[in-house]
Amino acid sequence: MAIEMEKLVALCKRRGFIFQSSEIYGGISGFWDYGPLGVELKKNIKDAWWHDMVRNPPPGPDGKEIQMVGVDCAIIMNPKVWEASGHVGGFADPMVDCKKCKSRFRADQVAEATCPLKPSKRPGECGGELTEPRQFNLMFETYVGAVRDEENKTYLRPETAQGMFYNFRNVLDTTRVKVPFGLAQLGKGFRNEITPRNFIFRSREFEQMEMEYFIHEDADWDKCHKAWIEWCRQWLISVGLPESHLSLYAHPKEKLAFYSKGTVDIMFKYPFGVQELWGIAARGNYDLNQHATASGKPMDYFDEASKKKFVPHVIEPAVGVDRIFLAVLCAGYAEEEVKDEKGGVEKRTVLRLNPRIAPVKVAVLPLLKKREDIVRTAHAIRDELSRQWRVVYDDTAAIGRLYRRQDEVGTPYCVTVDVQTVGDTDKGESADGKVTIRDRDSMEQIRVPVGRLGAVFGELLGGARWADVAAGAASG
Amino acid sequence: MAIEMEKLVALCKRRGFIFQSSEIYGGISGFWDYGPLGVELKKNIKDAWWHDMVRNPPPGPDGKEIQMVGVDCAIIMNPKVWEASGHVGGFADPMVDCKKCKSRFRADQVAEATCPLKPSKRPGECGGELTEPRQFNLMFETYVGAVRDEENKTYLRPETAQGMFYNFRNVLDTTRVKVPFGLAQLGKGFRNEITPRNFIFRSREFEQMEMEYFIHEDADWDKCHKAWIEWCRQWLISVGLPESHLSLYAHPKEKLAFYSKGTVDIMFKYPFGVQELWGIAARGNYDLNQHATASGKPMDYFDEASKKKFVPHVIEPAVGVDRIFLAVLCAGYAEEEVKDEKGGVEKRTVLRLNPRIAPVKVAVLPLLKKREDIVRTAHAIRDELSRQWRVVYDDTAAIGRLYRRQDEVGTPYCVTVDVQTVGDTDKGESADGKVTIRDRDSMEQIRVPVGRLGAVFGELLGGARWADVAAGAASG
Repeated sequence: MAIEMEKLVALCKRRGFIFQSSEIYGGISGFWDYGPLGVELKKNIKDAWWHDMVRNPPPGPDGKEIQMVGVDCAIIMNPKVWEASGHVGGFADPMVDCKKCKSRFRADQVAEATCPLKPSKRPGECGGELTEPRQFNLMFETYVGAVRDEENKTYLRPETAQGMFYNFRNVLDTTRVKVPFGLAQLGKGFRNEITPRNFIFRSREFEQMEMEYFIHEDADWDKCHKAWIEWCRQWLISVGLPESHLSLYAHPKEKLAFYSKGTVDIMFKYPFGVQELWGIAARGNYDLNQHATASGKPMDYFDEASKKKFVPHVIEPAVGVDRIFLAVLCAGYAEEEVKDEKGGVEKRTVLRLNPRIAPVKVAVLPLLKKREDIVRTAHAIRDELSRQWRVVYDDTAAIGRLYRRQDEVGTPYCVTVDVQTVGDTDKGESADGKVTIRDRDSMEQIRVPVGRLGAVFGELLGGARWADVAAGAASG
Repeated sequence: MAIEMEKLVALCKRRGFIFQSSEIYGGISGFWDYGPLGVELKKNIKDAWWHDMVRNPPPGPDGKEIQMVGVDCAIIMNPKVWEASGHVGGFADPMVDCKKCKSRFRADQVAEATCPLKPSKRPGECGGELTEPRQFNLMFETYVGAVRDEENKTYLRPETAQGMFYNFRNVLDTTRVKVPFGLAQLGKGFRNEITPRNFIFRSREFEQMEMEYFIHEDADWDKCHKAWIEWCRQWLISVGLPESHLSLYAHPKEKLAFYSKGTVDIMFKYPFGVQELWGIAARGNYDLNQHATASGKPMDYFDEASKKKFVPHVIEPAVGVDRIFLAVLCAGYAEEEVKDEKGGVEKRTVLRLNPRIAPVKVAVLPLLKKREDIVRTAHAIRDELSRQWRVVYDDTAAIGRLYRRQDEVGTPYCVTVDVQTVGDTDKGESADGKVTIRDRDSMEQIRVPVGRLGAVFGELLGGARWADVAAGAASG
């Protein structure tokens, strides 16, 4: 089912996933703040990537364990980095100005833009003459130090990759990694996009997860490239993106930079179209060579096997955290008709987020908040589970409504404490010491002894399937 | 023992904790890159804070559970945020210029500065006249959008706090928190310091961990302030800072801003002096009021108990990640004389990092890398432990040297696989299936069955004391 972006954006605002940055001041175009649930979802995506990529990396293309280390470089660097990388000279869009109203437009988008003075007309049609296209650099500029002159001008990084290239020798010299190895980084980047759009898809401040996999100059780069494409694709599936929404796009040879051996993008079917999610580029040894030339510092690697020096080639999988964030929301969002507590039909909005990245793992819900023993038991469960997982406690509505609230933000499991759990001495009913676990997706419920909750959630949040755990609970 | 900063800086470079940013281009003053070990240590500090502060927060000053949520706001905001906060008008140092050499100096540091033309003389003494002091704003400026004019000028945030203040209503409206509650954020900040110094202590790009604890206007702020000071102090101790290096500094009343009720800094004894580590400020409701006035959007809270509206007051504990990073390195660094493998005396450098934040938790070391069965067992142990923890494998030196390498970077435990583990059929010695675990600090060793490693490290890395675990292993 195609979802409407408006509904998703509204949910993000209403439930505290994403706010417009500086909202009380009218916002600022292209910048977003992550709210209480958004910050958790984003952190979980980043942590999953860091774990799977750096701390416990996959086997390499040859099936052997691979070496992987991380770095965390400054956002503001010496401007020579961006001269060497080509960003100062080439990271630009062609722009035209209207001489009448002084507005600026992307030259290749004039046909879709409107004149701010006469919104019914295209730029230039208002009578203002348009200038010839000029290059507008997308890097944000700033000045470092007490004096504001050309010498002190530098940029906010437009990508994280260059910090890994210029630190290549530092990493070789301070760790025991040998080619082939990977160098990974996670952090913010900034691009002064002329037209930020599609919510957090194209923003001016974003977060990247990039990895440079350095290989021998004679290595089978194509095999390695394909292996990383497939790893990235599988990783996206593992955090909850449906395979049916993913496709591959190979950049045509004639559009590649001269040094590029090939770039494949993993595309995701967003509500606004099929768009780039994860780019996997085979960049040869262009970047290391550029920095070697510009800095005068060699970027060679000495290969002990062949006793030969060479400048390693690189495969670069680069993905935006915000784009994954948006993709899992789009893929997980659904509106369904379901049975309510009384057997009737009601609508629910549900976010089918993978439990690994869901912002809240478990909601603990006391069925009767006036029963002191129920509340005490629910508090104890919340405290115990909180030691390991992000848990919330909610007693501010009837149970059906509490479930809907959690469904809507993707909480995979709810625990309900009821009268059966604690017993009812007035009615002569003894306590069974069990609580109900409800599964978000199937809405099935099982009853589990309180003492087994830790173990059961260890399984469920460790990747076990609900059906298997439920079957175990029923038989046990 | 007072350590020398030069040694620590050298270790950080040599072992890949911290590199100068853009080093191959001569660096850039006040910016640093975290290397392969640094990025892990930094992440562990941030994750520990996020867990203890946000996901599983401490009981509040009244002993009850507290409500805590996080946000992650953009670094670039609408400039009105910084007008309202007072940073545009007031976040400045007084500077003087030399009219001869055009150099700029902090007016209050002229007595310690030297003239760049004549380094033996003070500024001005070279014959150049100094200007009257002028205010120099410490915020980095940049321009957002296609046109570079005053209207599009904004700033890199100099602190994370304001994003939490202006989102106060958004958080109230999208979560179920009620006053008192905390709002936490972790992220980068930027200050164009005139004289960055003391390694990563005072840099131009840094990472902050801040929390705003909103309380009732009539609440006992002093009690709450004291409770947070003590929580922060205990947290620092919990990640490995010795209590003896911590002290409290209460800002004198006459130096406080008019709205401030009090600020106490937790000070740490760095090698370069006792310096501010964590500031805990009682800021009244100044910030919320400023944003309410500037934006025209009320920042009131309706208290259901008293049926009264008020603007909450705030207690703000704010700490720099980089400063904690430096503190744990300074506190953990030691050079010792220890017994070597042959009973002689040798020197070792050791980083006594708390296991919770140590970049590598376990090093797996095969005693003989030519014995295929030893290597296979060691690989299997590495693979198994890597599923939960950051583990390294090293076989590139003799065991004594391998231990020293791990001691120097703070790895709390080493696992050694030797001939006893796998047996020696030539000599008729059977395998005992046990490996040696060595403790970094005491250098004691215990032997543990391979199958119990997961459980033992679960204890050791979960906070158990070595002595207790060792006693258990000996008796079991």
